[in-house]
Amino acid sequence: MIFDSGGRAQVLTEEQLDVVHERACDILEKIGTDVRHESTLRRLRSEGQRVDGSRVRWDRAFVEELVAKAPASFSVRGRNPERSVTLGGGSLVLTPAGGAPFCSDLERGRRDGSMADYLELVKMTHASAVLTCQQSGVVEATDLDDRHRHLYMDYGVIRFSDKPFICYGGTGERAADGVALAAIACGGREAIEESPALIGIVNSNSPLVWDGAMVEAMTVWAAANQAVAVTPFLLVGATAPVSLAGGLAQQIAEALSGIAIVQLTRPGAPCMFGSFLSAVDMRSGGPAFGMPEGVLGTLAGGQIARRYNVPYRGGGGLCSGMALDAQAASESLNMLWATFLSGCDLVLHAAGWLEAGLTTSYEKFAMDIEVLRMFATMRQGISCSEEELAYDAIAAEGPGGMFLGSAHTLEHFRDWVFMSPLFRSQAYPNWVKQGSRRADETATAEWKHLLDTYEDPGIDDAVDAELQEYVERRRQKIEAGDT
Amino acid sequence: MIFDSGGRAQVLTEEQLDVVHERACDILEKIGTDVRHESTLRRLRSEGQRVDGSRVRWDRAFVEELVAKAPASFSVRGRNPERSVTLGGGSLVLTPAGGAPFCSDLERGRRDGSMADYLELVKMTHASAVLTCQQSGVVEATDLDDRHRHLYMDYGVIRFSDKPFICYGGTGERAADGVALAAIACGGREAIEESPALIGIVNSNSPLVWDGAMVEAMTVWAAANQAVAVTPFLLVGATAPVSLAGGLAQQIAEALSGIAIVQLTRPGAPCMFGSFLSAVDMRSGGPAFGMPEGVLGTLAGGQIARRYNVPYRGGGGLCSGMALDAQAASESLNMLWATFLSGCDLVLHAAGWLEAGLTTSYEKFAMDIEVLRMFATMRQGISCSEEELAYDAIAAEGPGGMFLGSAHTLEHFRDWVFMSPLFRSQAYPNWVKQGSRRADETATAEWKHLLDTYEDPGIDDAVDAELQEYVERRRQKIEAGDT
Repeated sequence: MIFDSGGRAQVLTEEQLDVVHERACDILEKIGTDVRHESTLRRLRSEGQRVDGSRVRWDRAFVEELVAKAPASFSVRGRNPERSVTLGGGSLVLTPAGGAPFCSDLERGRRDGSMADYLELVKMTHASAVLTCQQSGVVEATDLDDRHRHLYMDYGVIRFSDKPFICYGGTGERAADGVALAAIACGGREAIEESPALIGIVNSNSPLVWDGAMVEAMTVWAAANQAVAVTPFLLVGATAPVSLAGGLAQQIAEALSGIAIVQLTRPGAPCMFGSFLSAVDMRSGGPAFGMPEGVLGTLAGGQIARRYNVPYRGGGGLCSGMALDAQAASESLNMLWATFLSGCDLVLHAAGWLEAGLTTSYEKFAMDIEVLRMFATMRQGISCSEEELAYDAIAAEGPGGMFLGSAHTLEHFRDWVFMSPLFRSQAYPNWVKQGSRRADETATAEWKHLLDTYEDPGIDDAVDAELQEYVERRRQKIEAGDT
Repeated sequence: MIFDSGGRAQVLTEEQLDVVHERACDILEKIGTDVRHESTLRRLRSEGQRVDGSRVRWDRAFVEELVAKAPASFSVRGRNPERSVTLGGGSLVLTPAGGAPFCSDLERGRRDGSMADYLELVKMTHASAVLTCQQSGVVEATDLDDRHRHLYMDYGVIRFSDKPFICYGGTGERAADGVALAAIACGGREAIEESPALIGIVNSNSPLVWDGAMVEAMTVWAAANQAVAVTPFLLVGATAPVSLAGGLAQQIAEALSGIAIVQLTRPGAPCMFGSFLSAVDMRSGGPAFGMPEGVLGTLAGGQIARRYNVPYRGGGGLCSGMALDAQAASESLNMLWATFLSGCDLVLHAAGWLEAGLTTSYEKFAMDIEVLRMFATMRQGISCSEEELAYDAIAAEGPGGMFLGSAHTLEHFRDWVFMSPLFRSQAYPNWVKQGSRRADETATAEWKHLLDTYEDPGIDDAVDAELQEYVERRRQKIEAGDT
């Protein structure tokens, strides 16, 4: 595996990058994509694209010109502007898992996600220094009516955290609600059009379909100048060809056509090239996360995004394991190393992902955060100050000495040695005496500790009232069937 | 983190490399090392080194000149010459865990290692395609008398495998027995002096001590032109300063002085720059494997070895976890990624290491092998043949299609999708129905399968008789106290 000068993996040669790009253009021009959205079809026709029913055959120059309008980097502000994040250049903005209908912890078991669970996870995300962006959808609040659940979930991240957030979205209406709430929280629509305040995620219905809800969501966000991560959902062997190269060509076709729609809506709107690419376990048909295909796909995705000079959404602590065991940990670590080496800008699912994404695990949340802390330490590299070169300490001990109790060690170990409550080294008999507890069991105390350390960032009463009023008004409208 | 053009991490700048080298030379010249070996001390004095008791203060030019005599790459032959391995250039020769007094599997429990366990693990190593070198010491045969156990263990790898092996060693006498057995197995002493047939490991007694047994072992191996991996055993905060930079300076001083002794014994003898560097868990004093210090230390070690143009021994699936749980897996994966990214030539402890190395776990052995298979797949990168670009398959499915049952998928998935018996994706209800088994439990079937697939490579009857005769003769001599 080779790397560029920025330390980002180059798993494709320049020639291979050209080849997959060319194939993606062939796919766009000859096979085309479906775009199930009338006004977008009309617009594309008026721009000279060949439209046949909902099938669009895209001219490559047209697509490339639009993609070139996307910014190479941009910021997303939090409700607290000091918590703003920049996306671009391998910025590694980390968010927790999202989209799971279930959640689990060892004490309360595996269960349908509820609003109470959701708010706990939002607070844990706020309390974690390594997670710099919230995810509205860290678990589904399935105890709320799904017609207006998104309002309460978006309100939840805005009220109980002041970090930037990924909007619930999924339809144009929900996207618009997210924008309206962010505008209330951050100084009005004009202010957030100036300085984006949320990130929206859109997935193509792979292969090669942009459905109406997704197009509507992305045009709403783009029109408001909010950030959109355009992410094909590729399982090679199911929603994409069984080969990585074919999957990448399809990914490019889908992502570029999505980005083109964003840029057609509002030239210069912030958007990202997204990768969510894994193999399928051919024995079950289920997605196989953390395997070589996912690692290589994540690494290749970063290269491809850089080719188009657009920030990259990819990676995360993905796994297929059903429990927080050695399988889940190995898969997650593979994907987190790929995340780390691919130059990711936005990382969804960096903490808590379990069971192929169907469950957000409190214990895995705690464990992933410790692993992410390790990566933060590793990224700092090695420092060679005089004090760290430690010549005097070595001279003082001399041959046959012992540094465990030396003054140099006692002075510095707290700052220089990575220590984690979840990664301990102890003697086997002591471990047995303490109950032979596995890592998932010791993680219980850690997620509780994280939740305990949550501090409410507070919110201006008038803003909060306006947010709540908006939520209530919209809920009533939705219930009345008047969206 | 940045990388060189060969994909190997560069965690130290050129300037930092110079600084740690300079400090190492200062350590050698001003502090010195103890060398508790009379004839080596005499030799060093006669070469003009300052010797004071057992303390040697090394002249840097003298050391550098000797280190320059070490070959940049060399081969080690197996009993079957087709199984020879080359060390150098990031060759990634993988061996199982070594040195553990205990072994464990879920069915038979954790126990003192026995000869029966040892032979099972030797056979599993032979049966694994990814492990290309045996380790005499994959578990201690504690049921054998420790005065002549090494004879039976070295004989075990030679008889039941035809791969190259790491000799038991640890003293000059044992090193000599290993050489004698390898000579019998591989065509005589002259033949193995021509073409090395074993690898010996020597560790300094850090900080800065070369004890008599280790020096004796390395001079025996070097005199016979067998490969020696000179490996400081550094736990930063215990046997080395608490800072990585200080640990690296000490590591260089110890490794270069060891390599100098090898080259003084026989100029040009094959040897390796070894790294075994981890942090100490300051809460227990135990070694903390798989943490950022171990990752960065492993990566830096590779850079340093390349600076001296000597093959690199480092890495491995090291962990501190007491069970094959999420902790052990996360630690191991961190270290295996470091192994993969550091340009390692020889990797000890690549499979089976558990409990900070005190136990060789059969389940972890099976699991590590699957992870090593993943790395082998990832190293192959992405291929972009026409068939893999899959344009026709994408065209055949078109927007809204499904590749799960497509002809292209059915034709290729067996070859193109990584599948492992230990990494499965399934539906949660099915997993529960099948007993909610964790990865360590499913690994039981896998190590048994590996053992079942073992095929005896056979051995020439006359050679075997000679080996057994040597073992018996030496056993009697040792029991008679006549070594």
